[in-house]
Amino acid sequence: MKRGRIAYNGAVHQVTEANGKVRLADGRLLNDGDFQWLPPVEVGTVFALGLNYADHAKELAFKAPEVPLVFLKGPNAITGHQANTRRPADATYMHYECELAVVIGKTGKNVKKADAMGIVAGYTVANDYAIRDYLENYYRPNLRVKNRDACTPLGPWLVDAADVANPMALKLTTRVNGKTTQQGTTADMIFDIATLIEYLSSFMTLNPGDVILTGTPEGLADVKAGDVIETEVESVCCLANTIVDDATYFATV
Amino acid sequence: MKRGRIAYNGAVHQVTEANGKVRLADGRLLNDGDFQWLPPVEVGTVFALGLNYADHAKELAFKAPEVPLVFLKGPNAITGHQANTRRPADATYMHYECELAVVIGKTGKNVKKADAMGIVAGYTVANDYAIRDYLENYYRPNLRVKNRDACTPLGPWLVDAADVANPMALKLTTRVNGKTTQQGTTADMIFDIATLIEYLSSFMTLNPGDVILTGTPEGLADVKAGDVIETEVESVCCLANTIVDDATYFATV
Repeated sequence: MKRGRIAYNGAVHQVTEANGKVRLADGRLLNDGDFQWLPPVEVGTVFALGLNYADHAKELAFKAPEVPLVFLKGPNAITGHQANTRRPADATYMHYECELAVVIGKTGKNVKKADAMGIVAGYTVANDYAIRDYLENYYRPNLRVKNRDACTPLGPWLVDAADVANPMALKLTTRVNGKTTQQGTTADMIFDIATLIEYLSSFMTLNPGDVILTGTPEGLADVKAGDVIETEVESVCCLANTIVDDATYFATV
Repeated sequence: MKRGRIAYNGAVHQVTEANGKVRLADGRLLNDGDFQWLPPVEVGTVFALGLNYADHAKELAFKAPEVPLVFLKGPNAITGHQANTRRPADATYMHYECELAVVIGKTGKNVKKADAMGIVAGYTVANDYAIRDYLENYYRPNLRVKNRDACTPLGPWLVDAADVANPMALKLTTRVNGKTTQQGTTADMIFDIATLIEYLSSFMTLNPGDVILTGTPEGLADVKAGDVIETEVESVCCLANTIVDDATYFATV
């Protein structure tokens, strides 16, 4: 089953997917444009992986990591499908990152790899934009690069774990204005989902609603105001966002 | 006024300070040991500053930063006054960090330095323990160092901003088993509170309940199971925690 969350008529609604349409709990079907997409779950802690695909690490001229490189995203960064994504005037380079997002469904502490997939509720798609402004510093990635308001769309659907036969063999695709610019497969992750859950839960408690953004393969490109970016993960969903300039963004928030 | 939050008789209570005692909303005074301290506010996003005191940067052999070095703490890391703090068996060095914690009281976006103190609700004390295990990697500080469960006590009191005459001239003191090991003053911050609020709100929305841990001066020392650590900020409050080993910690959570 595919579940989502929307803002509609001034309230938050849980919805499900019905033949490509959005269905309210009372059975009514909604049309695109009549509601606003929210992230498909109320997110708890959001973890993001850096350099978790060897080809992408190579693209950025880093060596592949020996331990998972994990950083946190603040709730301010998370937004939904079809949200406008701001390219700030001071950004010198802004790239998308198509990522499989793993949503935790059960509390997990010291979870062993063999049991790790049992605490996964399901999957969604993230676009973990990086907004570079050459402001490098000791704490990496700095918050101006990876934690600006609404820089990380998530959604539109949460697909039940049971409905994804093998999350470690899913195609990832990014299209910019309809043209494919990034392709990869989750099979190329350096640290797979079970390993990430074992690692994180060895020193932190994972809770329902926590989300792990599992990293992105090679194929980055600078995006500009007006570009429509689609990030798609096979068998999960396709997330679309429009890049806007400061004036357009601030007129709508 | 000093406000706090406690768990008492199975519920969360807002309390105030009355002559050193804890007072419930109905006026009853409670004795230490009859309740459990919670962080004094329900925290939103918690920002932590690295190397924000020049002497501490020097102690760690880093040059003082030219821009604020900010990282995020997950909600899992935050705990309260008198909580046990775990020294994990795999830690090679674990040090306290006495910090003035700034609690945001109003939504802030693009707040100018001159207006910044106007969005501060008040102050509390944080002990932002670092649990080093020599697992250095590209994303710094890594989550095993700074984001383990319950590694950052906060409290006990939130002191109203109006009651702190000059937050930029407060003595910071840490005592280990009663012996003073760390002393400093908030006057030595590299980036003062107003500058931090201006900086963060220039690319992120600050919200009520967000907390900024403003960094720590020099004077670090390794702490061991059994040590009682008191971190005190003048005119704010004194936060105490006991370091425990894995067995003791896991027996109580």
